[in-house]
Amino acid sequence: MNAPSNSEHLQPLVSRRTVPPQALTELQQRFGTQCSLAMAVREQHGRDESAFTTVPPPDAVVFAESTADVADAVAICARHRVPIIPFGVGSSLEGHLLAIEGGVSIDLGRMNKVLSINPEDLTVTVQPGVTRKQLNEEIKSTGLFFPIDPGADASLGGMCATRASGTNAVRYGTMRENVLALEVVTAQGDVIRTGTKAKKSSAGYDLTRLFVGSEGTLGVMTEITLRLYPLPEAVSAAICSFSSVADAVNTTIAIIQMGVPIARVELIDANSVRMVNAYSKLSLREEPMLLMEFHGSPAGVQEQAQTVQEIATDHGGQSFEWVTTPEERTRLWTARHHAYFAALTYRAGCRIISTDTCVPISRLADCLLDSMAEADASGISYFLVGHVGDGNFHFGYMIDPESADERMRAEALNQTLVKRAIDLGGTCSGEHGIGLHKMDFLVNEAGSGAVGLMRTIKHALDPHNLMNPGKILSWSAPSGH
Amino acid sequence: MNAPSNSEHLQPLVSRRTVPPQALTELQQRFGTQCSLAMAVREQHGRDESAFTTVPPPDAVVFAESTADVADAVAICARHRVPIIPFGVGSSLEGHLLAIEGGVSIDLGRMNKVLSINPEDLTVTVQPGVTRKQLNEEIKSTGLFFPIDPGADASLGGMCATRASGTNAVRYGTMRENVLALEVVTAQGDVIRTGTKAKKSSAGYDLTRLFVGSEGTLGVMTEITLRLYPLPEAVSAAICSFSSVADAVNTTIAIIQMGVPIARVELIDANSVRMVNAYSKLSLREEPMLLMEFHGSPAGVQEQAQTVQEIATDHGGQSFEWVTTPEERTRLWTARHHAYFAALTYRAGCRIISTDTCVPISRLADCLLDSMAEADASGISYFLVGHVGDGNFHFGYMIDPESADERMRAEALNQTLVKRAIDLGGTCSGEHGIGLHKMDFLVNEAGSGAVGLMRTIKHALDPHNLMNPGKILSWSAPSGH
Repeated sequence: MNAPSNSEHLQPLVSRRTVPPQALTELQQRFGTQCSLAMAVREQHGRDESAFTTVPPPDAVVFAESTADVADAVAICARHRVPIIPFGVGSSLEGHLLAIEGGVSIDLGRMNKVLSINPEDLTVTVQPGVTRKQLNEEIKSTGLFFPIDPGADASLGGMCATRASGTNAVRYGTMRENVLALEVVTAQGDVIRTGTKAKKSSAGYDLTRLFVGSEGTLGVMTEITLRLYPLPEAVSAAICSFSSVADAVNTTIAIIQMGVPIARVELIDANSVRMVNAYSKLSLREEPMLLMEFHGSPAGVQEQAQTVQEIATDHGGQSFEWVTTPEERTRLWTARHHAYFAALTYRAGCRIISTDTCVPISRLADCLLDSMAEADASGISYFLVGHVGDGNFHFGYMIDPESADERMRAEALNQTLVKRAIDLGGTCSGEHGIGLHKMDFLVNEAGSGAVGLMRTIKHALDPHNLMNPGKILSWSAPSGH
Repeated sequence: MNAPSNSEHLQPLVSRRTVPPQALTELQQRFGTQCSLAMAVREQHGRDESAFTTVPPPDAVVFAESTADVADAVAICARHRVPIIPFGVGSSLEGHLLAIEGGVSIDLGRMNKVLSINPEDLTVTVQPGVTRKQLNEEIKSTGLFFPIDPGADASLGGMCATRASGTNAVRYGTMRENVLALEVVTAQGDVIRTGTKAKKSSAGYDLTRLFVGSEGTLGVMTEITLRLYPLPEAVSAAICSFSSVADAVNTTIAIIQMGVPIARVELIDANSVRMVNAYSKLSLREEPMLLMEFHGSPAGVQEQAQTVQEIATDHGGQSFEWVTTPEERTRLWTARHHAYFAALTYRAGCRIISTDTCVPISRLADCLLDSMAEADASGISYFLVGHVGDGNFHFGYMIDPESADERMRAEALNQTLVKRAIDLGGTCSGEHGIGLHKMDFLVNEAGSGAVGLMRTIKHALDPHNLMNPGKILSWSAPSGH
C-alpha cells in the first residue's frame, strides 16, 4: 500500500474551474429565486460532516423542485461545462458535497414528496429529498416500514448515492438490496429510468446498482422506488455489557455464524457509552456493550433471544437487560444514533475522522482489536461503534481541526486500519462511501485494473467530468482522446 | 410497443464475421488439444435450450483450464477482432450461446474447482464451471448451503451471467444479492477483481453487479465468491391443490403480503402436473397446485406452515399434504425441476418457447390469468410453472420447430404477455436474461434512454464488440466515432 499524499488525506486538493458568468445568468433566468448566489446559502451547501474544513463553497445553489428542474439545471451546466454537486441534507462524512472544483450545488431538499405508496406490493416511490424518518412517518398507517437506518436522518437520495446501510442491514440488507428502480438525470441532462417495480429482473445491465453508490458522479437521482417490509409482529431489544470489547465481538461472531436472524447487533465501546450517557442523560453501564434487536413472530423473537442470551453468557456477557416498551427502545436507539453528536459535544470544537472498514465476520476480532490497541497507544481521543453483525465498525477519532499533528496521527491510524482490513479480505468503506477521503484506499483495495474500469465508465457516461468531479476517482484523460 | 421484426423473433439474424486463419493458428499453438475445430465439438457448443435451431456453430472451441487460459484466449481473439462466447453447461434458454457472429466459444466447464470454502464467513469462492449441485455436494459437511436453484444444474458462471434465481429466491434473493466478488477477464484480456469478501461495501462503482447479468457481453468471469447460508434447522414442505390457478395465485399473493418468510412457493398448473406424473412416475392430483417449503427453527417452521395453511384454506385450497422425509421432498422438487424436460418428452420433437415475465406481486393474478386465457384460446400446447412468490412465472409454449405457424402464434402470445407485464410495472425477464430473444422487449421495457446508456457502457468496455456480440443490445457505432 502506498502512503497517500498529505494533500489528499489532510485536506483535499482544491482546483476550481472558472464558472462563466453566462452560466450563472442562465440559471438565474431559468430558476429565479430558486437559484441563490448568496454567500450564506453557498457556504451552507459547501460543508458536510467530514473532517475537511477549508474548501471554498460552490458558486451557486439551485433549489430543484422537480425532475424538470434538475434536468434543466444539468443541461445549462453541461452546456457551459460547469460542475454539478447534488445535495441532500448535508450529512455526508467523506467530503462528497465539497465543491473542490467549484460549480453548482443542486439542492434536492424540496423534492420531498412520497410519490406513491404501494402497500400491496411492499414498495414505495419517493423523491430524493425525502428523509428516512419522514418516509417511515408517512407510511406508518400501512403497517410497513423502510428498515435502512444509517443513524442520521439522511435523505433517501443521499443514502442511494453512498449505498448506505446502518443498524438494520444485518437482517434487511443495504441500499444495494433495497432499491428497485430509479429515475436519473444523466450528465447530458436526459431523464432515464432504471429497473422496474418487479422484485427481481434479468433484463439487461443493472443500471440501478450502478447508480446506487455512485456518489453523484454519474447522474442525479430524481425518483427512487424502494422495498418495504411488514412491521414485525413482535420486536424485542436487549442490552448486554461485557468486560471487554473482545468478548462483545466474539459474541457477535458466534451469533452470525449460527445464522440467528437478528435484526440489529451494535457494538458500543465504553468511551461511547460515557459520552452518550452525558449527552442523552442516560445511566448505562460504562462498559463495552452490545445493543440488540429481534424482529419476528412472538415465538420467533423469543427463540432468537434465548439463543443469543446463551451465546452471550458463554462469552462472559454480564447483564443481559431487556428493553420492553417501544419508548425505552426508541430512547436506546436514539442514544446509539447520538454517539457521533455526543462526541462532538464531549470535546467541544473537535472534528471527527470516522473510519468505516468492513471485514468478513470471522476476521472482525482480529481487525478491530489490533486497531483498538493502536488507537489506545496513540493518545488520540476516540470512540468506537459498530454494525458488528456485518463486520463493519467505526472509530471516531476526535481531533482538533487546527492541529495538523492530531490530524496526521488520526490519519495514520486510519491508514493502518484500512490496510489491515484490506489484507483480511475486507473493504475501506462499509457504508460511508469513498468521497474525497478514501480515493487512495479505493485503489489499494480494488486494484488499478478495477479502478481503471470504473474510470472508463465515468469517462463514457460523463465525458466532460461535470458530475461531482474529483470524488471516488481521480480524473485522467481517456486514452486515445 | 413496436411489433418486433420477424427476423429477430422467429430466428435470429446471423451475420458472421470472418475469423482470420491466423487467429485459429495462434489459438491452436497456445492451446494444443485444449482447442478444437472439430465440427461435433463446435456444434455441441453452438446450441442451447432456446427455441432457435438454425444458427451455425462457433468457429472453434477453447477448453479453458485457468484464468490465464481465458486471458490468453481473449487476448488472441481481441488482437484478431474475433468474437468470444463464454460457455458453461449450455442450459441457456435465450440463445446466449449461439454464435450469430461466429467466433470462439470459451468452454469453462473444466474450471470446476471449489477454490476456498470459508464456513466461518459463510462464503465460498469457486471457478465458473462449478455447477450448483456440485457446490452443494462439496460444502455439505460444513452445514452450509447455496440456495439459488434455477432448476437446471447450471454452472455458477452461467448463473452469474444471467442473474439467475429460481425457486428459493423468494427468501434468499437472486444471484444479484448473493455474489460478493468476482474475478473477470475484460475485453482487453486484463484480469481484474471486483468486490471483496466483506458482506457489504460502499467502495466505488458496483462492478460486481454490473457483470452479474451482463450475459458475457462485458467480460468473462473466472472466479466467483458467493454467500452461503446455514442449513435450516428444520425444513418442511407441503403440496396444496386448488380447483383453479386463480385460487393458487391469490393464496400466494396473500402469503407474500403477510410477510411470511416462506422459502419456496411454486405454482404448477394441471398441464405440468400431468406431464410430470408421466415423466417422473408420480401420482400427483392433476390440478393446479402450490409446492411450498418452509425453512427455520422447528417452532418457526410450524408457525409459518400454520399461517400458510389458513391462508390456503381461505382461498379454497383442497388438500394440504405434508411432505415430511428428505427423500420425498427431493423427489417432489426433482419432479418440479423436470417440468421442462417432461414437456419435451410429452410432445416428442417439440421445442419450448419459455416466457419469463415478472410483475409486482399485487398484479400477478391480472397478468397471469389473462395470459392463460389467451394461451388456452390459441390452441398452442403449453404448460405453466412459476416462482409465484416473486411474481415470476413461465409459460412453456411447446412448438413444432418446423412449423412457422406455431412459432409465430407462440411468439404472439409471448409479445402480448410481455406488453401486459411491462404495463403492470414488471419486466420481460425475471431470471433467464435477454439473450437474443428479448432484445426488442428490453427496449420497450427500459426505454431508449436507459438502453442507450447500457450501449454507452458496452461501447466503452468492449469497443470492438467482441464479447458475446449481438446479445442484450444491438450494436451501433458510438456517436462521434
